[in-house]
Amino acid sequence: MASRTTRKSKRDALTPEQRAEVDDARAETQQTRRATVPALEELLYEPLPVLDHGFVRVVDYMGDDAAIVQAARVSYGRGTKTTRTDAGLINYLMRNQHTSPFEMCEIKLHVKLPIFVARQWVRHRTASLNEYSARYSVLDTEFYVPAPEQLAVQAAGNRQGRGETLSGRDAERVLALLRTDAEVAFEHYHQLLGDEPPAEGSEDAEPGLARELARINLPLSTYTQWYWKTNLHNLFHFLWLRGDEHSQWEIREYAKVVLGVVEAWVPLAHHAFMSYRVGGAHLSAEGLAVAKRLIAGEQIDPATLEMSPREWRELKATLGID
Amino acid sequence: MASRTTRKSKRDALTPEQRAEVDDARAETQQTRRATVPALEELLYEPLPVLDHGFVRVVDYMGDDAAIVQAARVSYGRGTKTTRTDAGLINYLMRNQHTSPFEMCEIKLHVKLPIFVARQWVRHRTASLNEYSARYSVLDTEFYVPAPEQLAVQAAGNRQGRGETLSGRDAERVLALLRTDAEVAFEHYHQLLGDEPPAEGSEDAEPGLARELARINLPLSTYTQWYWKTNLHNLFHFLWLRGDEHSQWEIREYAKVVLGVVEAWVPLAHHAFMSYRVGGAHLSAEGLAVAKRLIAGEQIDPATLEMSPREWRELKATLGID
Amino acid sequence: MASRTTRKSKRDALTPEQRAEVDDARAETQQTRRATVPALEELLYEPLPVLDHGFVRVVDYMGDDAAIVQAARVSYGRGTKTTRTDAGLINYLMRNQHTSPFEMCEIKLHVKLPIFVARQWVRHRTASLNEYSARYSVLDTEFYVPAPEQLAVQAAGNRQGRGETLSGRDAERVLALLRTDAEVAFEHYHQLLGDEPPAEGSEDAEPGLARELARINLPLSTYTQWYWKTNLHNLFHFLWLRGDEHSQWEIREYAKVVLGVVEAWVPLAHHAFMSYRVGGAHLSAEGLAVAKRLIAGEQIDPATLEMSPREWRELKATLGID
Amino acid sequence: MASRTTRKSKRDALTPEQRAEVDDARAETQQTRRATVPALEELLYEPLPVLDHGFVRVVDYMGDDAAIVQAARVSYGRGTKTTRTDAGLINYLMRNQHTSPFEMCEIKLHVKLPIFVARQWVRHRTASLNEYSARYSVLDTEFYVPAPEQLAVQAAGNRQGRGETLSGRDAERVLALLRTDAEVAFEHYHQLLGDEPPAEGSEDAEPGLARELARINLPLSTYTQWYWKTNLHNLFHFLWLRGDEHSQWEIREYAKVVLGVVEAWVPLAHHAFMSYRVGGAHLSAEGLAVAKRLIAGEQIDPATLEMSPREWRELKATLGID
Repeated sequence: MASRTTRKSKRDALTPEQRAEVDDARAETQQTRRATVPALEELLYEPLPVLDHGFVRVVDYMGDDAAIVQAARVSYGRGTKTTRTDAGLINYLMRNQHTSPFEMCEIKLHVKLPIFVARQWVRHRTASLNEYSARYSVLDTEFYVPAPEQLAVQAAGNRQGRGETLSGRDAERVLALLRTDAEVAFEHYHQLLGDEPPAEGSEDAEPGLARELARINLPLSTYTQWYWKTNLHNLFHFLWLRGDEHSQWEIREYAKVVLGVVEAWVPLAHHAFMSYRVGGAHLSAEGLAVAKRLIAGEQIDPATLEMSPREWRELKATLGID
Repeated sequence: MASRTTRKSKRDALTPEQRAEVDDARAETQQTRRATVPALEELLYEPLPVLDHGFVRVVDYMGDDAAIVQAARVSYGRGTKTTRTDAGLINYLMRNQHTSPFEMCEIKLHVKLPIFVARQWVRHRTASLNEYSARYSVLDTEFYVPAPEQLAVQAAGNRQGRGETLSGRDAERVLALLRTDAEVAFEHYHQLLGDEPPAEGSEDAEPGLARELARINLPLSTYTQWYWKTNLHNLFHFLWLRGDEHSQWEIREYAKVVLGVVEAWVPLAHHAFMSYRVGGAHLSAEGLAVAKRLIAGEQIDPATLEMSPREWRELKATLGID
Repeated sequence: MASRTTRKSKRDALTPEQRAEVDDARAETQQTRRATVPALEELLYEPLPVLDHGFVRVVDYMGDDAAIVQAARVSYGRGTKTTRTDAGLINYLMRNQHTSPFEMCEIKLHVKLPIFVARQWVRHRTASLNEYSARYSVLDTEFYVPAPEQLAVQAAGNRQGRGETLSGRDAERVLALLRTDAEVAFEHYHQLLGDEPPAEGSEDAEPGLARELARINLPLSTYTQWYWKTNLHNLFHFLWLRGDEHSQWEIREYAKVVLGVVEAWVPLAHHAFMSYRVGGAHLSAEGLAVAKRLIAGEQIDPATLEMSPREWRELKATLGID
Repeated sequence: MASRTTRKSKRDALTPEQRAEVDDARAETQQTRRATVPALEELLYEPLPVLDHGFVRVVDYMGDDAAIVQAARVSYGRGTKTTRTDAGLINYLMRNQHTSPFEMCEIKLHVKLPIFVARQWVRHRTASLNEYSARYSVLDTEFYVPAPEQLAVQAAGNRQGRGETLSGRDAERVLALLRTDAEVAFEHYHQLLGDEPPAEGSEDAEPGLARELARINLPLSTYTQWYWKTNLHNLFHFLWLRGDEHSQWEIREYAKVVLGVVEAWVPLAHHAFMSYRVGGAHLSAEGLAVAKRLIAGEQIDPATLEMSPREWRELKATLGID
């Protein structure tokens, strides 16, 4: 029952058997004529830890920065010129939303993640997915418990965010609830499956309820895992939305790790993404008009604008004024 | 706190406020030049019950049987001829997998469903989706508890199915576990949110944990709801996969209700779907060769075939032989 | 042979038979409980002319501004409040790229367009399409000839644009070439199909070459037509890309007409789109930093920036400086 | 002007410069930890000829047969067992339409193809595409002329197929028309672009019409080229539809070559595809009932069936009866 207990090395979230499988896969190399990225080869198959039991593993990839250039040029050979020229073209494509060449790179990840994160992740539809089936197999006893510093009250000004962190004592009480409920749910899960000794005082073994039913009792914090494959354009969209501060902290932790993978894989595209998507800002027609007036030295009276107070606050933050 | 208690009429899964909203929407009519289906208008907005607290509501639709014909003909007017001719064309399209005209009809549903069903449903990617957000709002205290006759042991011959139904006593024990755990989870959910009186012996109110964290403790049986919009081609694919006996019983219950909606909406396309997709069978190259030999009066010795024992069993069932 | 000659009224690009079909469709009305938009009903089925022989016809639609709000709220009834509140929510959704509620509106268009435009259009993949088949039917003798004022030389500074308009005499020569070649191609098309009298001096009728082969000789300016159905989110993306000045003028003419349809259909969403997508601007990280420094009254020396000369020119244009 | 003339080796459709680029790309190899398929490495970058000037080149790939198994098992290592077990699982997945593991393999092709073929190809939407831009660059003078044995009259019984092959004399006349018209169109294309000497008797050079306009005069037989990337599941769907005899012969020629690539790449999946999709047959509910009755030794009177005469003919062909 290795899978149910947590006899895992500190090093990563793997059992010894899983670790051996990963090491075997990493030990084998072949010759290929395909575009190859040494920095990503280095990471290949290795679980990169996220949250308390999760990980992201790169299982395969197709293409590199040069493949973006090659597709944009529909070229016969590698299609790249100098790094400077290639970077210029990649920046141009990103800036002008010529997104199709970025679709020419593909990556496949093995991800272990809590179900409530998985439910947010799966909203990105342009991807391929194979999830571990709890109808077919028994789930490991692994559930997410936030670190104390992640426990926060409901945000006051933002209906879907977090506010202040809980005090130590409140945090303890919350953690106790979350942990105990999950533990009880997993204990009952195994009772329902009939693979636990009968509860004390009960004379007979529990019936082996169908796995597809027994699992409905498990909490949303339960870890699941899947293979997920997508192209670089859609991955950037994922990273942009899920790396954003409006996303739930837990999925942002995954986005952060995946962003690091992207930097190793396609450094030029990563740089363009950071410069033209993440670091920049989109101004509305009115926001742009305000910026122009400010540049021209005018004073702005927000009462004369059509934008909502919230929009005005956001614009001031964007433009660094007060 | 109407939303948290279950003061709902037997008639459907709605609160009085929701019922009034639905009735108001049903009371209004407008004139339209668009293709209109009286039988579907009759169902519009009305929740069709599924499982213990779920429903399917048709919120909007585009097109009818004639719209399939019209698109296949790229016609200027209605594009239909006699019902017989239209039916013939629709059958032809279905039989020959000319699927694009079926994409020309669209339907929008409001569905209330347990999260474990939602997780299966959402694997159908070619659809639009807006789900009720448990980051933004508090979830109703509603969770799925199977009816006793649905409690079955793990199937022996099939790793992802159900076998025998549990005996009354075992079923009771299972139901008690499922119900109690879910109730406790919801009680704790409200404690975490800080909208419950403090537990006995505790002197202070619980902190208002962020909604996005409090909900991770809820079970997969919790009901969620969403607006889901898809086209008829993708809906048929959904119905074919999720109406199949290899699907989990709970999602099949939804598929059954949606199939009834389709029959009211596009009776000719529904008939073609039942005749050419659902009721038929796909034979492999070898299976077809066997069928031909059987028709020619030959005896088949399965030992001479390349198919697996399971495949042979399935083929015999399909062809009605033994 | 009505279809091959151009006995069409000035009023629109329809033959009398097609006009009668459209009029019949427009004459019929039904009662519906669905969301209905009178301004769009007014346009329904009527061809809106584009270019010399093309059109856009709205064939069906689903939803209205309120349907966006309704889906965002996952509501039981209409889900709308005051127009002001609804507009605020729609603006918020557009500003923050919460795109899924816009997917809840759907539109179906019948479009007649030159093949080279169709080839650009079809790159928008998230849509349903039924095209008139030149394998199955004979194409009308209709091809696009640009108006003289649209004939321009290759742009000097922009590899994929147009520069100066041709002089009258050059324009005439170009038009003569385009028109004559297309006419000859269509004449030969009909000869190949065997539906023309044999050429003078030839004794026998031409063979009836298969339609799927005869059409390969036709020019890219030939008109085709299709039913095209997409949701409002994807339509906005189409309008944003194809309405942009980097797009070819001919497809922008279609985008312009479709934008007018959208304004009639969902005026609040249209307004949000114009304010937050079309009229605004996206600044890169460095561009934003420049804007902040300009607002703070600094002088910028472009030589100290990392941006390319082209990017600097574009930024100056965006911010209205020189 | 190497690109416009046809100084190409018999060996393939490449210019010497393109050949050198391909040879360079083939000469480089790297070490990789990724799944690698020697038989496909052998083909990599090499143009596989199709029609008179077209080709298919494999530019990159991700995954192999084992990757399908690995994803289906969501495994930590290679995930494969014996070849026999893997083949069994792949057959099972194909037979039961568990299509998602096949999405875990990806392939990128560079294809050169006539525009009328490209228009059929692009209807497969779940793929990434970068096409050579005739707005941005000048097209090579390459157009498709069918081989004489491909020239056939319109089919009598099938509105979108070919019938008898033309006689030699008729074929010659057709070919002359097709070839002359295309040649004239290309000559005029270059005149419009201003890169041809003025026509005799004309005193001035032609104006350099914008490339995006000059190309609208070219025929649908003109060759274009693109990078196209898709996953194995969607590729099978493409091959199933475009390899079918109802498809136009020219695109079937491409499908045939791509099918050969798939066989080299994923031999087990290819075998499953041929056994369970291509070689088999789908019977309707009524067709299956007929098959059962025939197996039981009954005689069938078609007049008592609900199927159309055409369907009955097709069923007899499928079941090998008369």
